[in-house]
Amino acid sequence: MNHTIAPLYAALCAYERNRHISLHVPGHKDGNVFDKEADNHFYSILKIDATEVSGLDDLHHPAEVIAEAQEMAADAFGAAETFFLIGGSTAGNLAAALTLCAPGDTILVQRNAHKSIFNGLLLAGARPVFITPYTEPDTQVATGISATHVKVALKKYPSAKAVWITNPNYYGMGQNVAEIAEACHQAGIPLIVDEAHGAHFSQALNVPDSALKAGADLVVQSTHKMLPAMTMASMLHIQGTRIPREKLKRVLSMIQSSSPSYPLMASLDVARRYLVTKGRKQLVATVEKLEQARLDLTRKLEYLFIWSEIDGKTVYTRDPLKWVLTSRHFNVTGYQLLEWLEEMGIVAEMADLRNVVLVFPIHNEVTQIEKVINAVLQLEKKLANMPGERRTRNRTNAFFTRPGRLVKPSISLQEAFHFHKKRVPLEQAIGWCSAEMVIPYPPGVPLLVPGEKITEEHVNIIQEIKWAGGYFQGTSDETVEEIFVLVSL
Amino acid sequence: MNHTIAPLYAALCAYERNRHISLHVPGHKDGNVFDKEADNHFYSILKIDATEVSGLDDLHHPAEVIAEAQEMAADAFGAAETFFLIGGSTAGNLAAALTLCAPGDTILVQRNAHKSIFNGLLLAGARPVFITPYTEPDTQVATGISATHVKVALKKYPSAKAVWITNPNYYGMGQNVAEIAEACHQAGIPLIVDEAHGAHFSQALNVPDSALKAGADLVVQSTHKMLPAMTMASMLHIQGTRIPREKLKRVLSMIQSSSPSYPLMASLDVARRYLVTKGRKQLVATVEKLEQARLDLTRKLEYLFIWSEIDGKTVYTRDPLKWVLTSRHFNVTGYQLLEWLEEMGIVAEMADLRNVVLVFPIHNEVTQIEKVINAVLQLEKKLANMPGERRTRNRTNAFFTRPGRLVKPSISLQEAFHFHKKRVPLEQAIGWCSAEMVIPYPPGVPLLVPGEKITEEHVNIIQEIKWAGGYFQGTSDETVEEIFVLVSL
Repeated sequence: MNHTIAPLYAALCAYERNRHISLHVPGHKDGNVFDKEADNHFYSILKIDATEVSGLDDLHHPAEVIAEAQEMAADAFGAAETFFLIGGSTAGNLAAALTLCAPGDTILVQRNAHKSIFNGLLLAGARPVFITPYTEPDTQVATGISATHVKVALKKYPSAKAVWITNPNYYGMGQNVAEIAEACHQAGIPLIVDEAHGAHFSQALNVPDSALKAGADLVVQSTHKMLPAMTMASMLHIQGTRIPREKLKRVLSMIQSSSPSYPLMASLDVARRYLVTKGRKQLVATVEKLEQARLDLTRKLEYLFIWSEIDGKTVYTRDPLKWVLTSRHFNVTGYQLLEWLEEMGIVAEMADLRNVVLVFPIHNEVTQIEKVINAVLQLEKKLANMPGERRTRNRTNAFFTRPGRLVKPSISLQEAFHFHKKRVPLEQAIGWCSAEMVIPYPPGVPLLVPGEKITEEHVNIIQEIKWAGGYFQGTSDETVEEIFVLVSL
Repeated sequence: MNHTIAPLYAALCAYERNRHISLHVPGHKDGNVFDKEADNHFYSILKIDATEVSGLDDLHHPAEVIAEAQEMAADAFGAAETFFLIGGSTAGNLAAALTLCAPGDTILVQRNAHKSIFNGLLLAGARPVFITPYTEPDTQVATGISATHVKVALKKYPSAKAVWITNPNYYGMGQNVAEIAEACHQAGIPLIVDEAHGAHFSQALNVPDSALKAGADLVVQSTHKMLPAMTMASMLHIQGTRIPREKLKRVLSMIQSSSPSYPLMASLDVARRYLVTKGRKQLVATVEKLEQARLDLTRKLEYLFIWSEIDGKTVYTRDPLKWVLTSRHFNVTGYQLLEWLEEMGIVAEMADLRNVVLVFPIHNEVTQIEKVINAVLQLEKKLANMPGERRTRNRTNAFFTRPGRLVKPSISLQEAFHFHKKRVPLEQAIGWCSAEMVIPYPPGVPLLVPGEKITEEHVNIIQEIKWAGGYFQGTSDETVEEIFVLVSL
């Protein structure tokens, strides 16, 4: 396939060249009716912010340039069929849930999933059974599950419609997807993979295998996260015969805008072209440079730590484009590290209680890596000079305990959503079932989902995150001093 | 309120000025990692295609610049609270359904609604009762319903959670929203209005009143359609106490991307600034020019017709920014008119069997209106010289008969979605219940929704639209030669 062309983007360029009098939407009329003071940023993009006029195909009915662009993406990512998402990976996850689950259906779901997976299950009226993940010991980050966990779960819940995992996690830690896929296929059900953070997987020999290569049936990738598409532009890939394609197409048309953004779609088209024609080579070189830099740097660190250990159990793969920088100083949180880095002109991806995550681009300048190394060394010095102790391992305060444990909430997410609720102070909520999602953000993995019983440990973790400067999504009270709980009538 | 500022856009400009080393998503790193051949269009927008770093607030947790931008929008559109939608009005309609209806809940819905309303009802598991609209006689276009229809429906279905209307329709034809709002409020329930095509309403004295002004409780507007925001950028407005705001916020976070596009959000901010500081004045002047031009032109037409008659029953208001150009020639369809206009360099919004719709921008050049007038006169000449007869009124082939009639499908949209189905040739489907939405697109109003019985008339209309060159969304067979119907086991 000739990946030097970008058919959808080319069609938009042709649209611009052959401009007519627009008596159709959008209201900005190719940018002619617009706030001139904002033209600096918007002028050139509005020329291709088109709608479904002839020659530009239709996302919900693709037959021409969008179909072609999607086929080229499928080729580049190793899918049988690829769908452009203009609602982000959120749209992909909602679509997966609605395609695979009717109300009341059982589905096995890795518990440390992005909130959009829980929301999809809620919308579908599914009855998820959660599989508790491992926790990586140095960083205290929830990772993945194992094929054995899946086999045990499938024995207990043979009516499960699918297994849904998240790989890699937000920190670039991965699990053995191929073995899990095999376990699913032996049971005759599909494996769904939220690969939001792994759009670059399998695109070079020195990054982990993609979920599609490992045999997954439906895969959602945030093309805007690790590859250069516009924010909110993602892809959904499928292969094999286990996914009902017609139903999937109907669901995607249902939950995505009927006025899809052409710049977002075109950015997927050019991101694919860029990846294949240049990005793959750049990725190899970037990873080589980063690995060397990380090794050199690690030797010089005592109060900081860059995670890298793959033990084959709690972690099976590592994304070399991500550095998880962990504080070993008792008095320094990941939030604090993030703040200090920002003061040094380096904006990190996210932080939690212990760690800060740096996301490197697929194309990297050596000078930039050097700046990052210098900043980390400065941080190391800062921590060494601070009062307080150094720990070799973080104390255990993991979100999720007992890997492989199956949790089936007594009430579905949808029932909980419509159930009667009352608001109580957080401390008084212990023993009640939560009526809200409590989502430390980032990473966006819910600590509590509706229907789960609130424990003292939950309250402790919430207070620790708050105290350390983290914040929450999903709750009606953003300070989480009060929380809605489920009450019977 | 000082509407000369655009707080969200200003924050993005500041973000660009203070650029740091980005070790966070998006993967294009402020445009530094991108396909250079597409830089022409994308370079400047990628500089502000940011994510939730400090200073840029969070759409799902707004407290700073997004909150401020939304408050200014609420002020400009007359709402108590406004929510930016980055999933288009589709997201607003899905959110409205999920906020107001639990599974099994009854809701009264004007039948000629956009597919996103049906999809919202499907996702919510609601049991809609459809109210059949009037049909405007000259154009054969489905319009609105009356307060009397609503009162009768509320008497028959007193448990209805809300009434949902679409105003104006795609052709700019409106109904008496104030009277309908009053009927709803007397019954103690909210009125939801899909005002996708009326974002400019109430923004000048010579356009119709907005739904908010008429007393509606929740209103969805496509800011990208009639006002100059980027495509897919819309707003949801609420007022009063009949909408559960916390639930609405949770639903919006559920169905919209967790990586919302900042350019789309900023385009809403600058569209509001533009509207208040310049657009309102331009709108008044544009409408004056257009009305005069339409009156002059109408006198010269015989085979074409520009709809304008408001009879207070089938149509109550008219959007002066839209011209519905109707063919009175028996052998010429709206699709044909659209094609001929395009050959003359004028791209119309949409066409149906009889009509073509022209959408004028709020800011118009006199020379452009003159070009349109000349094109319409050329069309008139073409039709006059063609063999075939002229009709004074279109023959009746309305989609919807008996205005005010209440239709309650025997099965909910959600049940139908998961029901067993079989595919049959269209002609053999008569008498069966459809398992698919059959949506002539545009205008995107479903001719058939799942659970509705397929009649001979439906088949005739489908074949007429196909024959005339229209096309369909929603069906698995895009040629609609075959259709899925519901079958019991």
